[in-house]
Amino acid sequence: MARTIAILGGTGPEGLGLANRLARAGERIVIGSRDAQRATDAATKLRDAIGASAQIEGAANAAAAAQCDTALLTIPFNGMAGLLKELKPAWKPGTVVIDTTVPLAAAVGGAPSKMLGVWQGSAAEAARELLPKEVSLAAALHNLSASLLEGDAAVECDVLVCSDDEKAKQVASELANKIPGVRAINGGKLENARIVESITALLIGLNIRHKVHSAGIRFTGLPL
Amino acid sequence: MARTIAILGGTGPEGLGLANRLARAGERIVIGSRDAQRATDAATKLRDAIGASAQIEGAANAAAAAQCDTALLTIPFNGMAGLLKELKPAWKPGTVVIDTTVPLAAAVGGAPSKMLGVWQGSAAEAARELLPKEVSLAAALHNLSASLLEGDAAVECDVLVCSDDEKAKQVASELANKIPGVRAINGGKLENARIVESITALLIGLNIRHKVHSAGIRFTGLPL
Repeated sequence: MARTIAILGGTGPEGLGLANRLARAGERIVIGSRDAQRATDAATKLRDAIGASAQIEGAANAAAAAQCDTALLTIPFNGMAGLLKELKPAWKPGTVVIDTTVPLAAAVGGAPSKMLGVWQGSAAEAARELLPKEVSLAAALHNLSASLLEGDAAVECDVLVCSDDEKAKQVASELANKIPGVRAINGGKLENARIVESITALLIGLNIRHKVHSAGIRFTGLPL
Repeated sequence: MARTIAILGGTGPEGLGLANRLARAGERIVIGSRDAQRATDAATKLRDAIGASAQIEGAANAAAAAQCDTALLTIPFNGMAGLLKELKPAWKPGTVVIDTTVPLAAAVGGAPSKMLGVWQGSAAEAARELLPKEVSLAAALHNLSASLLEGDAAVECDVLVCSDDEKAKQVASELANKIPGVRAINGGKLENARIVESITALLIGLNIRHKVHSAGIRFTGLPL
């Protein structure tokens, strides 16, 4: 049976963009939202845009989490802890969770190009504390422009994948590589998400200064 | 009269690499060190490598700071505060200081791919507190591989320039752009050095995992 990828808090621009790209790559997607109807509506709209072969459904976050093999967290940072506490009993053991959350100051009314300090060091490390041990976690996909994830053009951006779990790292890398133009790069341990998350704030600042929504990052000098 | 660029704490690999590139670009360089003889020896060696037309001298850090128009700080983070306190009376008003310092955990015996927490937020903001008001400050050049700065091949890396001072930002950008392959990018305010500095730790981690010394970054999606 094909795997199911839940995109939790997936009705925002980043979640919808990732749903779009992964559905186009043939993955089975369940968009999760606090409001199941909102998720279903978003799924219908996206399926209409991609074509009838796209496998996209909508569900409440907990229902989406319970049925998935892999989940992407695409919620604003201020909703992350509440969602993960709610989902604690929902996960199947062995689920791979890919955290894309960035603790932007915007989550508490601050600037979108500034970071909050997170006690654990990063949103990903905070997520690790809130997830059951039986769930694998990787941090990835933070630096992809939501605007560029719309449509199907190549996205000129590398994705650093940080994890202490080899399976989660492998799944996150595989999914990142399914987006045309994107190159997954081993970012080392989960704690390195501290730096990768902050690059998003830097890219947002570059977008603001250049009046675009397309800033991305490539790594050079690596034998890849 | 041509300007003079001091490279303070300039006998390490990053300082020598920047001295090499800026001397090749025709700039007049004074390498500064705690030990004037060590600085003079390094200057002689570098001039021999580049050719007799290269304008490179050596001096004690304070003498180098006193005679320069622009100074690059290329010392390890654990030496930064001590050096800036020592230099406080040496600077000419209007000097542009370009801080390249990264607060790597290696400065206190930790891993080279991890960052220290700095109370002020970044090495650059700490430097701002230790410099006289009459001195302009930009943070830049953190992410260039010292290995690649040897020799004269193009360096595939962008340089984010962060500053609250337009003159300092302009001088730092101009110098970065003198290195073949390098592209200076406006990184916004000095406080953004928090992120730019940490990218160096990320690149060091990539170098370690890939057994190279050449990792760099390029930004994509910007109208440059």
